[in-house]
Amino acid sequence: MNRQYLDWNATTPLRAEARAAMVEAMEVSGNPSSVHSEGRAAKMLLERAREQVAVALGAEGADLVFTSGATEAAAMVLAGRGIHCAPVEHSAVKAWCQQDLAVDGDGIVTVPDPARASLQLANNETGVIQVLPEDLASSDLTQAFGKVPFAFNWLGITAGFVSAHKLGGPKGVGALVLRKGTDSEALIRGGGQEQGRRGGTENLIGIAGFAAAAMTAQRDLEAGLWGEVAERRDRLEARLLAAAPEAVIAGKGARRLPNTTCLLTSGWKGETQVMQMDLAGFAISAGSACSSGKVRASGALQAMGYDDQQAQSAIRISISPALGDDQMNRFADAWEKAYSRWRDRNG
Amino acid sequence: MNRQYLDWNATTPLRAEARAAMVEAMEVSGNPSSVHSEGRAAKMLLERAREQVAVALGAEGADLVFTSGATEAAAMVLAGRGIHCAPVEHSAVKAWCQQDLAVDGDGIVTVPDPARASLQLANNETGVIQVLPEDLASSDLTQAFGKVPFAFNWLGITAGFVSAHKLGGPKGVGALVLRKGTDSEALIRGGGQEQGRRGGTENLIGIAGFAAAAMTAQRDLEAGLWGEVAERRDRLEARLLAAAPEAVIAGKGARRLPNTTCLLTSGWKGETQVMQMDLAGFAISAGSACSSGKVRASGALQAMGYDDQQAQSAIRISISPALGDDQMNRFADAWEKAYSRWRDRNG
Repeated sequence: MNRQYLDWNATTPLRAEARAAMVEAMEVSGNPSSVHSEGRAAKMLLERAREQVAVALGAEGADLVFTSGATEAAAMVLAGRGIHCAPVEHSAVKAWCQQDLAVDGDGIVTVPDPARASLQLANNETGVIQVLPEDLASSDLTQAFGKVPFAFNWLGITAGFVSAHKLGGPKGVGALVLRKGTDSEALIRGGGQEQGRRGGTENLIGIAGFAAAAMTAQRDLEAGLWGEVAERRDRLEARLLAAAPEAVIAGKGARRLPNTTCLLTSGWKGETQVMQMDLAGFAISAGSACSSGKVRASGALQAMGYDDQQAQSAIRISISPALGDDQMNRFADAWEKAYSRWRDRNG
Repeated sequence: MNRQYLDWNATTPLRAEARAAMVEAMEVSGNPSSVHSEGRAAKMLLERAREQVAVALGAEGADLVFTSGATEAAAMVLAGRGIHCAPVEHSAVKAWCQQDLAVDGDGIVTVPDPARASLQLANNETGVIQVLPEDLASSDLTQAFGKVPFAFNWLGITAGFVSAHKLGGPKGVGALVLRKGTDSEALIRGGGQEQGRRGGTENLIGIAGFAAAAMTAQRDLEAGLWGEVAERRDRLEARLLAAAPEAVIAGKGARRLPNTTCLLTSGWKGETQVMQMDLAGFAISAGSACSSGKVRASGALQAMGYDDQQAQSAIRISISPALGDDQMNRFADAWEKAYSRWRDRNG
């Protein structure tokens, strides 16, 4: 079946460049901690990848620690620190923070004390982009990385974290980036790898894929690929709203990621829509992938002032640069058909 | 240059079977947490890999949590628990434990209170194998996995941890295995993955490679491949000791891994030997890879009663099933030549 994948914020297929870099790295047999020739070759690959990811992040000269993903990197800078955040954050951040920062109806967060707060650059469910205050303790850059231009070194924040699999790299690899010389306590301890910040032999193949994906994503972004995505997304939203006038797009009043639509059709369960669209050949999600399968409504949407019934009706459509208008229209056709059926039964 | 890799305990080249499984997994684009068709395909791959690793470990029915390696898995069961261990443990274990268990001259550890202790099954530097006491809190099974037969379910221990890259899998993947229903606190929190035991999107490609490597390693072990390795290792040791009568093999009185030789030639720095052998085309190590490049002597050897000069002279030769007697003899020739030169200068 010719399926359409519209769940880009959950995870992305592996980019060809990442695949090639990983296959090449499979031939590097040494341990980067070994001093012999095989070990030094592995170390070189690791350090080259570190430079490439730093360049893609605009974090040249910063401290970049490779991790098993943004979730681990978040734990490294958040666990046991008494950090404040808003309920719109990803569960990997909320797990460690007091969720007491205020959120407005468009999803914009107020941060009274940046040095003791974590604030995402872009939201995974709504795509809403925040303006990060100076000297913010940390920021989840995962969804923004590769989709909107930013440079870590110009954000003025202390720490940021990202994941490879949101921009065409492999799952299970990420990075913590720290303003040069910032202290961080090792969560995983052992052989003193990553300058003592993170023990354990490095995921060399995954890291090679991450670096290749990050460089390519950065190139795509500079080439303006995501500007076209925003235009297609806007056309799709116009179609969906025309078909379902009572539907609402969360965060529409704010600056958003170019590829993300969070659509609320109060009363029509998001999970039902996900299943219907799946059967029709389209992968979308109800909220983030990580909260999929759970019945509770999105905390992010509730914080924005939506009630339970509205929040539970949310679907997230997150598209990729590879999808053209034709494919958008096919999705809109399928969704509108399902919407009409639901409307007829519930009108 | 035709190099010989005799540093198998530091890391292993990727097995062909692992490589193939990883390349295949690169085509699986979904997030295992997503409920749509792409997500379910990814979840199936993940759960099949979990079963395969469990079978290879003899841990059917136990709880198996995928991690970024043995180092992370060790932290999950050791951090903040007041666990006791011996100084022969890997640094990933020692980082969290009181190192007060007694070690004899052959490297055998006495464990007075197993429920509050961690004890490795096999040592990475000397290859010494321990008899694990019943109800031991945890065991580092990393070096033993794939080299000597054991079944987690028959060890009678509460928790064990392993790493993929020591048996032909990729670096940066491992597992924590727990007696069914054992509590473990999540070190990395977020989307509730791994039954709430470990947050973060799973390293799917790496996990696929781990499972393929573990199954193949288990098959090799059952086929008796490592018995031949032990014979070659014993012949190599006999040659080296004949050439250097004052040399000592650490742990020779104990049961050891079939592929490991820890050779002490008091006064001749291990690091010098590693560099000389590297130039001659052979990769060996001085102690474990993780402590490479650091000048302090091995804590494991000191705990066995060796003095500083002896401990600093240690080299580890750890061979693979792929190396035949010819290659062993070429290494012995090169080492004996270097030894004679050192002897002449220092005799």
